[in-house]
Amino acid sequence: MDLSVVFAGTAGSVPTARRGLPATLLRRGGERILFDCGEGTQRQLIRSVGLAELDEIYITHLHLDHWLGLPGMIKSFELRDRDRPLTIYGPKGIKQAMDGLRFIIGRVKYGLTVVELEEWEDVEKDGYTISAIPVRHRVPAFGYAIVEDDRPGRFDAELAKARGVPFGPDFGRLQRGETVNGVRPEEVIGEPRPGRKIVLSGDTEPCDALRVAAHHADLLIHEATFTEEERDRARETRHSTARQAALLGEDADVGLLALIHLSTRYGGREIREEARATFPHAVVPRDFDIVEVPFPEKGDPMLHRLDGERVPV
Amino acid sequence: MDLSVVFAGTAGSVPTARRGLPATLLRRGGERILFDCGEGTQRQLIRSVGLAELDEIYITHLHLDHWLGLPGMIKSFELRDRDRPLTIYGPKGIKQAMDGLRFIIGRVKYGLTVVELEEWEDVEKDGYTISAIPVRHRVPAFGYAIVEDDRPGRFDAELAKARGVPFGPDFGRLQRGETVNGVRPEEVIGEPRPGRKIVLSGDTEPCDALRVAAHHADLLIHEATFTEEERDRARETRHSTARQAALLGEDADVGLLALIHLSTRYGGREIREEARATFPHAVVPRDFDIVEVPFPEKGDPMLHRLDGERVPV
Repeated sequence: MDLSVVFAGTAGSVPTARRGLPATLLRRGGERILFDCGEGTQRQLIRSVGLAELDEIYITHLHLDHWLGLPGMIKSFELRDRDRPLTIYGPKGIKQAMDGLRFIIGRVKYGLTVVELEEWEDVEKDGYTISAIPVRHRVPAFGYAIVEDDRPGRFDAELAKARGVPFGPDFGRLQRGETVNGVRPEEVIGEPRPGRKIVLSGDTEPCDALRVAAHHADLLIHEATFTEEERDRARETRHSTARQAALLGEDADVGLLALIHLSTRYGGREIREEARATFPHAVVPRDFDIVEVPFPEKGDPMLHRLDGERVPV
Repeated sequence: MDLSVVFAGTAGSVPTARRGLPATLLRRGGERILFDCGEGTQRQLIRSVGLAELDEIYITHLHLDHWLGLPGMIKSFELRDRDRPLTIYGPKGIKQAMDGLRFIIGRVKYGLTVVELEEWEDVEKDGYTISAIPVRHRVPAFGYAIVEDDRPGRFDAELAKARGVPFGPDFGRLQRGETVNGVRPEEVIGEPRPGRKIVLSGDTEPCDALRVAAHHADLLIHEATFTEEERDRARETRHSTARQAALLGEDADVGLLALIHLSTRYGGREIREEARATFPHAVVPRDFDIVEVPFPEKGDPMLHRLDGERVPV
């Protein structure tokens, strides 16, 4: 099943000509889930992969730059006569914030549900789980871990045949857990294989909960608002530097580290160079870039431009 | 004095890849005044002419697509430690709307004033007036007329010299209204010349008040949400077709008609062709296009691309 992330907005709290306000779109099979929704996100999606009928939006925290795109997007869904319900998840306070927006949004005919998640709460999806990771920012804030269910172990067809199980329906019976011709499934099927994992930090200073959640993630999307030159400012504002994010990515042994939420003072190169000095598997996506996350046996996570051009790490 | 308009967002109620939500920037000398502020306007300005320290923003009406860019822009001004006060003008209801946004915007250290204008109320500026024109939409809505003060008549230097007034300080005395060497100012200075006039329709069906206000405008910026094929829908939603806007531009004998607020179903060509069949001096600006409005003796209003390339009418 295809799994990818579209970087729909990679700026920090103020947009630049090249970077829109925070928004990250997860695509898994036909599902589309948005993480954060800064002002202008609906148009960022229209400009890149299209404004899909999202079923769920997860907000990391209630700073304006992470959720001010909600009312316009909710209204645009209404204008095109959507009838699928929409659920918005976020930390404590999001219900009050969305109540405050009701006068802006007006009537919404499709169902609009707002859910306040507890720390570490899981949202179970079909084939994966989204977990709210408590991170450390100036207000209650979550990172999110998207963790696929384990996959069945690899079926060794050659071995099964050698043990006398004929190719055909008996292979299926073995894979469904039945013993066939005296051959037990565990003899020809390997250990369950972990699913893929993508973790988003939201806005945070370096955070142990996130480090644990990100362990062996295929892709860690971490904020890197500053470089080390602005480390004091990062500490004051409870953000991370590129080096801090890289250290965390290295400790967690992630497959690929994608750095976002850049302060307007950086174009991207400074952030990338600082991170790679510590952890080489780091990229700084531009808006509309995409990271594909294949199953590990199929390859490594890779950064692409919207037009498909591969970006070397 | 330079006078121009930057089209910062030319879409209707839903943005497209090419057109942002409504926002029009007036530039007169060093002044910058914004009319409407749809979601994403701060970034549209950053992407084109820069996010200036606007002193005033005029909202035409309280449909979401015309003002949802305010909280983000107000917050961005705060983040860069602005101290100049900001005044937001609009029709009845805008105070309540801005009060509703206070919880979003949070603390603003610079002065933020919200003014509800009456129909036909004038805001007097240094050298020009901005008037609220009551237009006809589904909610209380204004167009705005920007009308420069009259300029002094043309001083005929040759004639003054012929009447015996020497070149030098005496020219200035005549122009300031003094009689010099028996020559009265009115003998050598023509009638006062009207200043320039720019009129914006906001969202409206064809409207007589606007037609009157737009009489002999150098530039009329009129909505053209639909073509005649969608005339019924235009009437239902109280918008205008391109042909209706063109007829009004012709009746008002405007110098240039710029059509904006296009429904997502149009790229622009259909709107332009329909309008020009009735009124040839019609353009459909793209986002970031600019119309320069020179004094009439210096030339006609002209559409330019952001890079300066002239667009023929």
